[in-house]
Amino acid sequence: MKGRLFVIPIPISVGPPENTLAQSTMDVAKDLRHFVVEKTKTARQFLRKIDRTFPIDDAFFYELNKHNNYEFTQTVLTHLENGINVGVMSEAGYPGIADPGNGVVQMAHKNGIKVIPLIGPSSLFLALATSGLNGQGFTFHGYLPKNESERTNSIKQLSQVIFRTGFAQIFIETPYRNQVMFDALLKHAAPELQLTVALDITGDKEYIVTKTVQDWKSKNLSFDKAPCVFILGKF
Amino acid sequence: MKGRLFVIPIPISVGPPENTLAQSTMDVAKDLRHFVVEKTKTARQFLRKIDRTFPIDDAFFYELNKHNNYEFTQTVLTHLENGINVGVMSEAGYPGIADPGNGVVQMAHKNGIKVIPLIGPSSLFLALATSGLNGQGFTFHGYLPKNESERTNSIKQLSQVIFRTGFAQIFIETPYRNQVMFDALLKHAAPELQLTVALDITGDKEYIVTKTVQDWKSKNLSFDKAPCVFILGKF
Repeated sequence: MKGRLFVIPIPISVGPPENTLAQSTMDVAKDLRHFVVEKTKTARQFLRKIDRTFPIDDAFFYELNKHNNYEFTQTVLTHLENGINVGVMSEAGYPGIADPGNGVVQMAHKNGIKVIPLIGPSSLFLALATSGLNGQGFTFHGYLPKNESERTNSIKQLSQVIFRTGFAQIFIETPYRNQVMFDALLKHAAPELQLTVALDITGDKEYIVTKTVQDWKSKNLSFDKAPCVFILGKF
Repeated sequence: MKGRLFVIPIPISVGPPENTLAQSTMDVAKDLRHFVVEKTKTARQFLRKIDRTFPIDDAFFYELNKHNNYEFTQTVLTHLENGINVGVMSEAGYPGIADPGNGVVQMAHKNGIKVIPLIGPSSLFLALATSGLNGQGFTFHGYLPKNESERTNSIKQLSQVIFRTGFAQIFIETPYRNQVMFDALLKHAAPELQLTVALDITGDKEYIVTKTVQDWKSKNLSFDKAPCVFILGKF
């Protein structure tokens, strides 16, 4: 039997991994010795955190290559073909969702390798479930444009899409630009729309609040470099 | 201090809840006594499953009302205002995502109640992470139209959107119509696109495979009334 590729979610906040991972996720990860990873260092730290006796020196790590793609080397494929299970993990959350990693999964499908998802946190999904916004229809955009005028256009377009379709519009920003994005949303999104700000999900400073764009205008937020998911939509 | 509203994910397959829920999710759920639920009967079964000594008779359940909305009654709000925590749960997966439940969360936000997400399985997200398709940009559509000609148009439009944007297009179908949907996709989606079929996620018969539409044509699938997530996209 061929090996399987396990998609391993990683905690998105500090604190004990058992707070945000299913026990079975940790059990599977502990038993693996081959990992396709974003960074070897963080992967090692994670494995030591879920199992203090994890034999790190017996484990193999295949890291992101110079093109910022995960390595899915002939070695990894040969292991899988020979019945050895392999894990893929990113720095936080699910590999392949708002993160690199789906190339590895693609290669697995192309080679007839089974891919198995494990259970853990995804900031996008936790934000959506907690937003009160439309979970029957939604789009995730990744990052909006950095250029100011393109960003303004993009925000205006998203507002129009929401009025037309009702679909919630989800996007993220790099932590040091959260304030700029928030200010741009207050300025350019339709004031009657709802805006969810979801900061430090599952962390000590978790803050997930939905208000109209208009209501946010009278509120000062401190983003404090925490990871943030923004969702624009309507009730 | 006001009470908090916890968004409780429910297992999406049979088998021990600890396989798909974080321990902290079960710990929080066990301590609650007030639940806004889709069906009281399933909610009780779930609580007994995660804690055989759960005092069911001391618990209160507020069920979906006749308009198929969750009840967020004055009683629930008063409890929250008085510092009592409340849980919201659906039949499977996350309430409010491809399921009713976001009205309850909306009411919480409108009344300044903190909403806290817990960790468990979401078939949409697990399917996407395992598909190899675009996790940097994607749209979830819920159900496509039932009417044949509208469904055909919808599938053709989705194909065009993928060619234009690269965004993965996710949708679901009621189990007894999976085969009809699959046949329609093979007939009307662009043959060079990738199609993910994700069946019985986290269950015994889990099957998550991505192939081109063309390659699926030579393959007979038995959907066997299992819940299925479809994703159309490109590598």
